Amino acid sequence: MLAVTILGNNSALPAYDRHPTAQLVTLDDQLFLVDCGEGTQIQLSKYRIKWGRINYIFISHLHGDHYFGLSGFLHSMGLLNREQDLHLYAPEPLQEILNLQFKAACTVLPYKLHFHALKEEGLLVKTDKFRVDCFPTKHRIPCWGFRFEQVKAPRKLNPEKALSYSVPSSFFDRLKWGEDYHNNGQVVRNEWVTEPAPKPKSYGYCADTIYDASLAEKIKNVDLLYHETTYLKELAERAASRFHATTVQAALIAKKANARRLLIGHFSSKYDKLEIFEQEAREVFEATDLALEGVTYTV
Amino acid sequence: MLAVTILGNNSALPAYDRHPTAQLVTLDDQLFLVDCGEGTQIQLSKYRIKWGRINYIFISHLHGDHYFGLSGFLHSMGLLNREQDLHLYAPEPLQEILNLQFKAACTVLPYKLHFHALKEEGLLVKTDKFRVDCFPTKHRIPCWGFRFEQVKAPRKLNPEKALSYSVPSSFFDRLKWGEDYHNNGQVVRNEWVTEPAPKPKSYGYCADTIYDASLAEKIKNVDLLYHETTYLKELAERAASRFHATTVQAALIAKKANARRLLIGHFSSKYDKLEIFEQEAREVFEATDLALEGVTYTV
Repeated sequence: MLAVTILGNNSALPAYDRHPTAQLVTLDDQLFLVDCGEGTQIQLSKYRIKWGRINYIFISHLHGDHYFGLSGFLHSMGLLNREQDLHLYAPEPLQEILNLQFKAACTVLPYKLHFHALKEEGLLVKTDKFRVDCFPTKHRIPCWGFRFEQVKAPRKLNPEKALSYSVPSSFFDRLKWGEDYHNNGQVVRNEWVTEPAPKPKSYGYCADTIYDASLAEKIKNVDLLYHETTYLKELAERAASRFHATTVQAALIAKKANARRLLIGHFSSKYDKLEIFEQEAREVFEATDLALEGVTYTV
Repeated sequence: MLAVTILGNNSALPAYDRHPTAQLVTLDDQLFLVDCGEGTQIQLSKYRIKWGRINYIFISHLHGDHYFGLSGFLHSMGLLNREQDLHLYAPEPLQEILNLQFKAACTVLPYKLHFHALKEEGLLVKTDKFRVDCFPTKHRIPCWGFRFEQVKAPRKLNPEKALSYSVPSSFFDRLKWGEDYHNNGQVVRNEWVTEPAPKPKSYGYCADTIYDASLAEKIKNVDLLYHETTYLKELAERAASRFHATTVQAALIAKKANARRLLIGHFSSKYDKLEIFEQEAREVFEATDLALEGVTYTV
């Protein structure tokens, strides 16, 4: 299962009850936090999302609207007595900023925070279930996009059949990942109670970026693509001068990348209404949705 | 005129739609921001407060719930093209944190930010209209309280009388501050159109602190006192162990200080309802109010 929940869809200046960038990516049993603008912890609470299950955080770049909520979030997880390790992938200067903040507050987190500096394109983390890669985008400061991918998708379980073979429900998750069930010398073979897994799913997150056709290669064939659209198409010049993109440009990238669906966000505070963003993008790439806060987009 | 608007009244972990500490102090024509927890800029917008008029910011200490909204606020003022100088009074380590954040984002603010490190008790800033002093409180890390005071209060203007003497309304502010009006050799004497100023008003902000009777001396005779009450009276032991205070302790300080009114806040996230805080404090000091977000308390 792949899903993306939007926590913040606005660009730098919060406006119209829209918040700076933050997303939650669900890949089967994993929750990834992608960027963490100011107020992310409040948004997570508002949408009743259980923070404790987040084990990986990815920060694309060090413009404040993408990470000023991180320190508060890390501290709050400490106050909630988190014990599990947490992995943070981010541009290198963030480590010193966090260290100074911890030192100034005499904070000792009750969990281990592993800082991984983003340095070169490629694999960041891989398990038998998922992998995450990063790639550079073209922005005013070093900025990274991320590609999240199932290594394999879970098989489709038929629970009635499994129960009819007396497989306990506590074993269902292992069935989904392909195991047979053994009990007192008897075997329930996996293919009796499951159907083949669908094709592994993938999500591409293009962070902040100027229009860059070469990005399409990095996120080729993703099931869901997030691309920023700070501006409408008429402001292509302003977008370029600020290393941002427009509706049409985001849609072009989705088309070139052969993405299945496109999510657009990072809307400029100059825009009150958002419908026109969707209209403009759909003229180029029909399967486009606005990234709306509190909404979960499932592939 | 002295007024305090509450932007955040909760302790570290945001809860029940309560936010971390931030207050806006209005002293005649000046707006002071006191502490700046995460989300302060969003709270300011929510309550339609004009940021541009804030020229002084005071940060009591470097626990995140008192300053994690500051960087976003400083950046947003830049995005809104602020040009006027801004004065920031805060514990010294904040300067390096801010510098690193600016550097990582390649931020150049369009206004001049003057950083003043809090180092010793006493006067921070004084004009002919107001003064602000700081004093240490007893917390887990270095922490400062602030005392805001009118140097003189404006005289009470009778606008009808002033108009009857043909004083233009553009001169009214200068009348309030004691000037005579001169026009073609004729004089309208100040006392003809104004009444004497009331006693200068003062506000004491005690930040985060353990119960410390000696604090009362620092905020003697203030018109309005803010004292934290993280816990109800039954948790006095826990409060002390965490260098926080209870309802009764806050009320005792107000009594010892001979304050006119008491505002209590910094409520622990363990408390859903707040009425009992007010009840407990009022048993010791009747003129107590809960610091409620969005409410302006005028003296």
